[in-house]
Order: sequence, then structure tokens, then C-alpha cells
Amino acid sequence: MSMTDTNDPRLRCFLLIEPESHFPVQNLPFGVFRPRGGAPRVGVAIGEYVLDLTVVERAGLLDAPSLAGRSESVFDRSALNAFMTSGRAVWREVRERLSLLLRHDEPRLRDDAALRREALVPMRDVEMLLPVEIGDYTDFYSSRDHATYVGAMFRGPENALMPNWLHLPVAYHGRASSIVVSGTDLKRPCGQTKPDKAPGPSFGPSRSVDFELEMGLFVGPGNALGEPIPIDQAVDHMFGLVLVNDWSARDVQKWEYVPLGPFLAKSFGTSISPWVVTLEALESFRVAGPTQDPKPLAYLRNPVNAAYDIRLDVFLQPAECSEPARICSSNARHLYWSFDQQVAHHTSNGCNLCTGDLLATGTISGPTPESRGCLLELTTGGRNPMTLPNGQSRTFLEDGDRVTMTGWCQGNGYRIGFGEVTGKLLPATSPAHE
Amino acid sequence: MSMTDTNDPRLRCFLLIEPESHFPVQNLPFGVFRPRGGAPRVGVAIGEYVLDLTVVERAGLLDAPSLAGRSESVFDRSALNAFMTSGRAVWREVRERLSLLLRHDEPRLRDDAALRREALVPMRDVEMLLPVEIGDYTDFYSSRDHATYVGAMFRGPENALMPNWLHLPVAYHGRASSIVVSGTDLKRPCGQTKPDKAPGPSFGPSRSVDFELEMGLFVGPGNALGEPIPIDQAVDHMFGLVLVNDWSARDVQKWEYVPLGPFLAKSFGTSISPWVVTLEALESFRVAGPTQDPKPLAYLRNPVNAAYDIRLDVFLQPAECSEPARICSSNARHLYWSFDQQVAHHTSNGCNLCTGDLLATGTISGPTPESRGCLLELTTGGRNPMTLPNGQSRTFLEDGDRVTMTGWCQGNGYRIGFGEVTGKLLPATSPAHE
Repeated sequence: MSMTDTNDPRLRCFLLIEPESHFPVQNLPFGVFRPRGGAPRVGVAIGEYVLDLTVVERAGLLDAPSLAGRSESVFDRSALNAFMTSGRAVWREVRERLSLLLRHDEPRLRDDAALRREALVPMRDVEMLLPVEIGDYTDFYSSRDHATYVGAMFRGPENALMPNWLHLPVAYHGRASSIVVSGTDLKRPCGQTKPDKAPGPSFGPSRSVDFELEMGLFVGPGNALGEPIPIDQAVDHMFGLVLVNDWSARDVQKWEYVPLGPFLAKSFGTSISPWVVTLEALESFRVAGPTQDPKPLAYLRNPVNAAYDIRLDVFLQPAECSEPARICSSNARHLYWSFDQQVAHHTSNGCNLCTGDLLATGTISGPTPESRGCLLELTTGGRNPMTLPNGQSRTFLEDGDRVTMTGWCQGNGYRIGFGEVTGKLLPATSPAHE
Repeated sequence: MSMTDTNDPRLRCFLLIEPESHFPVQNLPFGVFRPRGGAPRVGVAIGEYVLDLTVVERAGLLDAPSLAGRSESVFDRSALNAFMTSGRAVWREVRERLSLLLRHDEPRLRDDAALRREALVPMRDVEMLLPVEIGDYTDFYSSRDHATYVGAMFRGPENALMPNWLHLPVAYHGRASSIVVSGTDLKRPCGQTKPDKAPGPSFGPSRSVDFELEMGLFVGPGNALGEPIPIDQAVDHMFGLVLVNDWSARDVQKWEYVPLGPFLAKSFGTSISPWVVTLEALESFRVAGPTQDPKPLAYLRNPVNAAYDIRLDVFLQPAECSEPARICSSNARHLYWSFDQQVAHHTSNGCNLCTGDLLATGTISGPTPESRGCLLELTTGGRNPMTLPNGQSRTFLEDGDRVTMTGWCQGNGYRIGFGEVTGKLLPATSPAHE
């Protein structure tokens, strides 16, 4: 077992970790947590625990040469940005040190009871915070099945996939300020809507609040304005991935989105999972994406396997139910446009990506009915209600509904998981002036 | 002359200030500058000088009770955000103190030669920096003339003004990272385009780079997620205005923008003027905006005068010319949707605005041919080239062209000016892989 093979499936942690755990020693995702009564800091998920990197670092167990000599710790912070900006060589080195430290046959932490109590905090005792200070947020539209299905509903089957869609990864700028961490509940938004037969628009609570199953890439080192990132260097700028629920108000979207795209239909809240899973942890799960025909232009061509085999599930739990019901199973490998292509395209005009920027995929739907990643698709725009196990039906979300998304890669006897992103839809606040 | 009437046209500064100056004592716009060999800090423009607020504060001349007791200066910073978040009462108090300090009959600064040398730095000796750390950037589309004219070109006259346009201030999220301060030159962007008759798209330098004449509002105190700002409180969240040049690549835009709106056509750069003119300085220039018919919904109704009479000019200077030529004269009063309405609409779904967010107006065109605020309109999409004084013609911008925008309010014997936003279009860097 090589010291540096942090992905070796035979690696074991000195903590007992179940095969279904999302956080074996092969994963080591980074997040920001607040221990009881403490200040926010960076940690790594391991089994049922959070490994406090500030404790490990102070104990001298994170002797990464690339971090030595810095005047300030990159882990004693309320966001991952300082660590993310340091680049892949540093990420790898820290990962190797942590992997070694947590091995079953490594005594330094395992046999130091006092240090273990301080460094390994039970997850139930911490509050997970937004892991990253997000500068700009971009939302792509990279699932062909989603674009086709939704396009047909909004514009008719003859205009489902717009002429540009197969040539470039379509995207729009999203709202960064309203990105919240898993566990944050959101109010049903009010907005302006106009049903087809109404003479004019009206203002009030949205009647068609939806979720969108997405993943998001966090940018590590950025690029200078005017200096595009060639596709074969895109990976150097990618830190890791999270789950994203891009809550959407479909009735608001339908009325507002022409000609400049979605705005208030999306900006009332976007939820992300708290643990950022690094590309290193996902390396074994790279697969070929869908065949691209027509062949993309040269700046978007990448010969490597650039998709990820990540199973994704969505659960819906009405307020009065004790159990969530799975309503969607999809997979990140369905994405037509890869993260490499998104980065290359995004910067092809010279646009500067910055550390902490979030690039989301757009809804990840697959080809089968159960793999549709939003209620708009699952209920065909509300025309075909779905029946939940408790006998209730749903077109769009009801007040009190909790939406939970999970994701993991299935290895040989272990999982590289993302944990979950969850949030409940609260009732709207009635507008004061209507 | 009341001590607190900082807008009194009779107010005089002890410095000689020409009637055409943009920066009389009635203006007092805030910016961030770097003196030769010094660190960035906050200053105020007065005539041909920058008043260094850190010097004034240290000298005990900024005895604003609302700022007393703070452990750190809000002016000894590289951005205005700390000052902007403090709210209107503080802004007013600082304005009153500065107005008093600069009066012709006030000796404290006027008669202290050493302090004057330190506090009043000639503008030619400083570098102006981006004044604000911008979180999110939103670009509205609030000029009816612009939306009508451009809509007709992109979608035909029958679809010029979309059905929603008269009911809500249409907007999209812009790219914050690529906002640059006046004086920053930008490279012609590369991008994917597809001429109507071409069989498929190609990648290369844009052939139709344009400017857009806009203004931008900087948000002062923000609102909490889920708590809309009622329109009658919108003004409390507004710090001040700048000039904005929203550079645009029209050929890229045409191919990419359906269905999610402009993306790479805009994100290669957006230029803003360095001095933020406060709403207090603009108070005397509030006017009624265009009549709104149909009447907006209640959450967008505001009985006060919410437009501003700001004259706006655009100048184009080809590389080989020594003089810029004026190619557009417009006015901010043409805006159909006001800043109050933009803020109320933006937050109506609960979206949180944050200190430092920039809300731009969209191109400010007027009803006459010379008031069209971009080349797309001025040359009818490139079909009617314009002739410059040097005999050259232009459809879109050529490499080396400098675009400069200015704006001011004409008072009785003085101007409240915005200075300028200027930038040159540099040649594209040839893509490596095409």
C-alpha cells in the first residue's frame, strides 16, 4: 500500500466506518463547521466525525511542506477560499497527510486519546456552515434530457433544443448572495405571474415552486481577466464538487424569462451540501460522457474521460410524513457538457473565474422517467400529478415539504459520498401591499 | 446659509472651482484612490483634488458622532463597503462635516498649509481604484426606447417589446468579477458565433464589439434573505450612482442568448466610473419619470419623483485621432423603470441585496436618433455605418477605439458630475487552438 495512493480501496481508517458511509478514508471532503461554543473552522468528514484541521495542524500532524512558513493558517478560517486558492499540489499534499494520519496502522492520532477527543468531533455536535465565500455563481444547462424535455414544455417540441445547444454549454449568471447551506429552510417566494388566460399579471405567492437536482463545481485558483483557460488546463482550476438544489418558481420564470433569462424565479434561494468532495477523491469514478455529435469546436475538445459516475437521488417528505419518499434517481454521468468544457467555455472570452466561484450543472436528468431531476419534468409541468407513498399527490411543492438530495460514487466496498443537501419550503410571507 | 444645506447652490469652496467642474462642494462623491507610494484609501473629489479622508479623520476634523467609537476607520480601507453599510444617517453626517470643512469661510483646513498639502492631493497624482467590493451585479433593461429598438432588431418589430416589459423591470444577473474601473483597457473577446447563412458556428474574435451607455446604483445596507424591501423604503438601501459601460459582443450575444440570456457576450468586461455620486448630491435633480401605462402593480407603485435629470454623453476616439468625437447624447430621465422600482422588484421574491451590489440600468437610450446609447442602435445593427469627424466610418468598435462616457446634472451655476468612464478596446489574443 503506497503512502500516496489515497484512493486505494483497501485503505482502512482506525475508526469503524460502515460500507454505506459517505465519508470513508478515501473521501476526505472539506467543509467549514462551528463546534459548540467555538468559532468557524475547516474540517474534514470521516465516518460520523469531523476532523478539526486546526487541531491537527496545531498538534504538528499536518506537516505539509507546501503549507509551512505561512504566517496564517488556511484552516483557521470561516471559509475554504484560502485553501482553495493554494492549488492542486497543496491539496494533494494535505490529502496524503490526512489519509496517512487516519489509517488503521498509524498510531499518532489513533493512540492519543486526548488529541482524538479534541480533533474528532461527532457530526451531531457541530453546525455545518456555507463552506465557501462565493463570488460569482454560474448555472449551466448541461443535461440534454433536461433541456429537451423542458424546452419542449416551454416552447413546444419543435423548439425544444435551441440551435446553439449542441454547440456550446449554455449558461446564465445566477445569484450568489442567496446561496445557502443545507438545512436552511426557505420561504415560498412571491412574484409576478400571468396565467395564459389572465388579462394581466398579478403578484402573490408562487404556485409552482420546484427543486432542481444539480451539482456544483467550486473554482480553486482563478484566471486573470483576458486570459482564457485552455480546456486541457481546466482541471487545474477545479477544487471539488457539491450537491446543489436550484429552487425554482416556475410560474414566475415563465412570465419573466424572455428575453434575458431566469431572474427572480431562481434568486430566492439555492441550497448546497456542506462537504466539498475533491476531484482527487472522485478520480476513480471518471467515465466517458455521452458522445458529442456534432463534434465540438476545438476550444471545447477534450480527449479525456470528463464525466463522473455519481448516483443522485431526490427525496420528498411532506410535513406530516415521518419518512421521505424517493422521487428521482439520476446520475451525473448523463451530463452532456463536462466541467472541463464549462470552464473552457466560460473563460473563452477572457472572463476571469475567481477562487470560490460556483459553476452549477443545471438540472441533471437522465433518459428514463424516474431520472427526471425536477417536478416540472416529473409531473409534465403539473399536468400529470405524482402520487406519494402516503397517498398524497404533488404537482409542485406544498408548504412544509422537505426536499433532500443525496449523491455518491459506489466503489468496491466503499462509497465516496456527498452527504446531503436538504431544505424545507416554508409558507410565503403575505405581501404587505397587495 | 444653513450649516446642513449641503446642496445650496450658493455654497462656495475655498478652492477655485470652475462652473464646468464635475466636483463642486455640492457634489462630494466618494471613491478609493492610491496616492503615489501609498496604500489605497477613501477620498472625496473636490475640484481638481482628492480630499484624503484618512488625513482629515486623523486630524480630528471629521468629528461625526455616528463614526465615533469605532475601533477601525471606515475610510482607511481599499473599498467603500464599510462606509456604505453604515446607512444614510452616517452618510449625511459625514457629508455635512465635509461640506462645512470645505466652505470658503471655514478656516480649519483652508488656513492650515501643512494639512492642506497632506489632505488635498492633485487628481493627476493619484490612481483611482475600483471603489467597491462588488458582490452581485444585476443588469436591468429599463429604457423603453432601447428595449423597443433592440427588440425589433433581434426579434422583429412584432416582438420588439415582450409582453412582460411594461409590467416589470426586466433584468438578468451579470458577471461581477470582470467589472473594472475606468481607465482599464479591455481585449476584444473571442467567442462562438454563427452568421445567419453559415452552416455552423465558428470560434474567433468578435466582429461586433459594442458599448452600452448605462448607470449603476450601489447598494448601501442590504436586506435579509426572505425579507423584501417595500418600494417606499428602497431609498434607504441606495448609496449612490456611477457611470457604467456594459461592453457587449453582439455576434456572440445573438448566438448564445436563447433561452437563458446574455452570458459571454457581456462577461469579458464592464467598466465603471471611479467616483460614486451620492443620492444626497443628486437630490435637487429628481424629476418625474415617464408616465407608466399600464399602471404598475402595487408593489411597484411609488408616488415620488424617482427619475434623475442626468445628461449623458458618449465619445469615441479612434487610435489615430487626437480628439474624441461625441456620438451619443442621452439622459437618465428617459429610464422607464426607476431605481426604487428596481430595488423593490429585485427583492420582491425575498432575494437579499448586499452592501456593494451593483444594479445597472441597462442601456439608456432616448427617443431621438442621437440619444441611442449603443452602436447596435446608432448603426441599426451595423447596417447604417456612422461617419466620424475624421472621415472614418464605424459599424462596431475597431481595435484601438477609446470609448468615454460622461454625465452631469446642470445646476444653477454649478454641475454635479460623474467624471468619466473610459476604456480602450485592445486587439484580441488569437486563440491557441483554432
